[in-house]
Amino acid sequence: MKFLKTIKVEEFKEILTSISSLVTEEELINIEVCFNRIVSRDIKSTINVPHFRKSRMDGYAVIAEDTFGAEEDNLIELELIETIQAGDIPQKRLNKKQCSYVATGAALPDNSNGVVMVEFTEVQEKVVLISKAVTPGTYIIEIGHDIKKGEIIVKKGALLDLATIGILASCGIKETWVYKKPKVSLLSTGNELVNQEVQNLEIGKIYDVNSIVLKKAIENTGVLVNFLGIIKDNYEDLKTAVDIALEKSDIVILSGGTSKGEGDLGPKLLEEYENIEILVHGVKIKPGKPIIFAKIKNKIIFILPGYPTSALSCFYVFIDNFLRKISGYPLRDKFSKVMAVGERIYSTVGRHEFKAVKIKEFDGVKQIYPIKTGSEAISTMFFADGYIEIEELESIIEKGEKRKVYFF
Amino acid sequence: MKFLKTIKVEEFKEILTSISSLVTEEELINIEVCFNRIVSRDIKSTINVPHFRKSRMDGYAVIAEDTFGAEEDNLIELELIETIQAGDIPQKRLNKKQCSYVATGAALPDNSNGVVMVEFTEVQEKVVLISKAVTPGTYIIEIGHDIKKGEIIVKKGALLDLATIGILASCGIKETWVYKKPKVSLLSTGNELVNQEVQNLEIGKIYDVNSIVLKKAIENTGVLVNFLGIIKDNYEDLKTAVDIALEKSDIVILSGGTSKGEGDLGPKLLEEYENIEILVHGVKIKPGKPIIFAKIKNKIIFILPGYPTSALSCFYVFIDNFLRKISGYPLRDKFSKVMAVGERIYSTVGRHEFKAVKIKEFDGVKQIYPIKTGSEAISTMFFADGYIEIEELESIIEKGEKRKVYFF
Repeated sequence: MKFLKTIKVEEFKEILTSISSLVTEEELINIEVCFNRIVSRDIKSTINVPHFRKSRMDGYAVIAEDTFGAEEDNLIELELIETIQAGDIPQKRLNKKQCSYVATGAALPDNSNGVVMVEFTEVQEKVVLISKAVTPGTYIIEIGHDIKKGEIIVKKGALLDLATIGILASCGIKETWVYKKPKVSLLSTGNELVNQEVQNLEIGKIYDVNSIVLKKAIENTGVLVNFLGIIKDNYEDLKTAVDIALEKSDIVILSGGTSKGEGDLGPKLLEEYENIEILVHGVKIKPGKPIIFAKIKNKIIFILPGYPTSALSCFYVFIDNFLRKISGYPLRDKFSKVMAVGERIYSTVGRHEFKAVKIKEFDGVKQIYPIKTGSEAISTMFFADGYIEIEELESIIEKGEKRKVYFF
Repeated sequence: MKFLKTIKVEEFKEILTSISSLVTEEELINIEVCFNRIVSRDIKSTINVPHFRKSRMDGYAVIAEDTFGAEEDNLIELELIETIQAGDIPQKRLNKKQCSYVATGAALPDNSNGVVMVEFTEVQEKVVLISKAVTPGTYIIEIGHDIKKGEIIVKKGALLDLATIGILASCGIKETWVYKKPKVSLLSTGNELVNQEVQNLEIGKIYDVNSIVLKKAIENTGVLVNFLGIIKDNYEDLKTAVDIALEKSDIVILSGGTSKGEGDLGPKLLEEYENIEILVHGVKIKPGKPIIFAKIKNKIIFILPGYPTSALSCFYVFIDNFLRKISGYPLRDKFSKVMAVGERIYSTVGRHEFKAVKIKEFDGVKQIYPIKTGSEAISTMFFADGYIEIEELESIIEKGEKRKVYFF
């Protein structure tokens, strides 16, 4: 068991990057519900796509050689023997000087080797006049042109985005093997917390926000989240809850209980687990310095600060893309823009600060303003448009300095 | 009834922008499932947040005046009468020269008007030595500091993002009125289409992709989608299906059946509805010129091309953000980047083309390459990284020219 000292933001990010996938179990699911899942086995097509020769245009399927010499002033006459719409099975094969109407996507009659577009034809009852010669192969989509039978169409590890699902659907595949979603257990700790079922709040109590907001934020990364409830700051209750959480899930996220106050049992509790590696205990950031990251065998525990604003900031900065990587979901692009600071901003020396900011526009120029409520206020999160990073050794950012704003 | 001529991309976008919300019905839902929904009534808080005076720090709640004069070399002695953790109800009020321990977030005892941080104190059994004076109000969060009782906390029309849900949760609100999701009916038309349950494809038949891919793309805009099945290219079947779809939903999206071939009934059918306004019939784009947009009273019908690649491109260019606006979902930011073209690209004059492209990197420089399969190939969608727009009058883009790539 080792306790690391408070570490820097970049060190923590490196530790998280070094963790690879947690889940290797597979499940077979319908492609209707496979969006954004990760394929766990190479998938081969059992058919050619298309599996029949088809027309790329509305026109007449012909024996190309029959059209040679056709021009606007030298119409060639072919006998129309059949009309083939998309979905029809051609009933007749072409003999010399015969043709069949084919709609776009329709199957071609045997013996045909070219299609003359409707624009270059004129129909007179059972006769079609051709005004343009075609070479063999014109406007024909050959068997397997798009996908060949036996070809690997989707590789193990691929993300099932819409285009990839389209490939499966077009090959007639209705189920696919994917990795199971990582399971996350979420716990809110704190004697002060009550859920929204409680009608009349006692003095000292507050409504738990993390069970709803943090839960949804975690869910949005593609993992399964199970909220295990509000746990009292009491050794036995917390131990029981964490044991259940470790049993049930791959990742355990607790909120609350990481600071130095007397009521904080999280760190004490973790120390007692055998095989635990506490990799991070405290990160030099504000808000939310207290953050713990530990591994027990192949399971992972995070303890986040209790204030919803701090918990959610920590989540976005460190855990969001980590969980997306673990579940295979597309990472969140951090959308950022450089702007000037509109009012002096203060920061604490010795902490890397993620300062919530508001963007205000005057005379068409957007500027950065600090939000003055602290991390204890839920409204801080509500009014913030994004955050700026303030380095450990900076204490003041003067009006007019340019900073990069990361938007939420 | 009016048929418009083929219109330009920008005109179509303007028509779509002019359509306002379709749904005004409301429903009351639990905040656990309200993410990305739109609030339909102003919401007021029925409580103050916090609803009791609390400490911002771990420390000692004091009567500020008792600490005046305290310094490192002039310690002031107070009697410790109580320990108040977060969640506790204070049992004692302070008298002169008394103090209570308060954890961060704990309720303050009556009469206290300041908190001395733990760092500036020393405890000796029932006595606390104070080494720093505090002014009244220090480290106290007053009642209603964050949210005031009766205040409108979320306005009608607001999107329920995580921060907004956090505000509701912290006020103890567990249900909220939201607008119902718009209902979309989706139909695939075409005699050639079969679903993935079919094991042995006959000649002429292909698997329907839009029922899975387009359905998911539509779902991702926050609307409810009901797939009404594969409809044969047969007037009676199609009429019955469209009637049911109009009855059941706010928006009807058909794929297939918009081009000029003989098997296309969509436009013919629409003409027969009373009160129909066919606002768009054909847009000068490639792939997917045939697109129809019509209004029947307050319902909307789109007919998209049948090829999945064309259907999905049309969907992304025109319908995606339109549906997001209607459902209130955040719009999709079009992420784009300017790069050089790596190989000559051809286009058809007279059509505004959305050309699927692949990005390849040579010697660290990313370049744009055309994808050579057409819109009939599902693999076009699969291999494309994004698309470039090619103006109506351009026929060739030379190698080396710079273009903006919009990523999928």
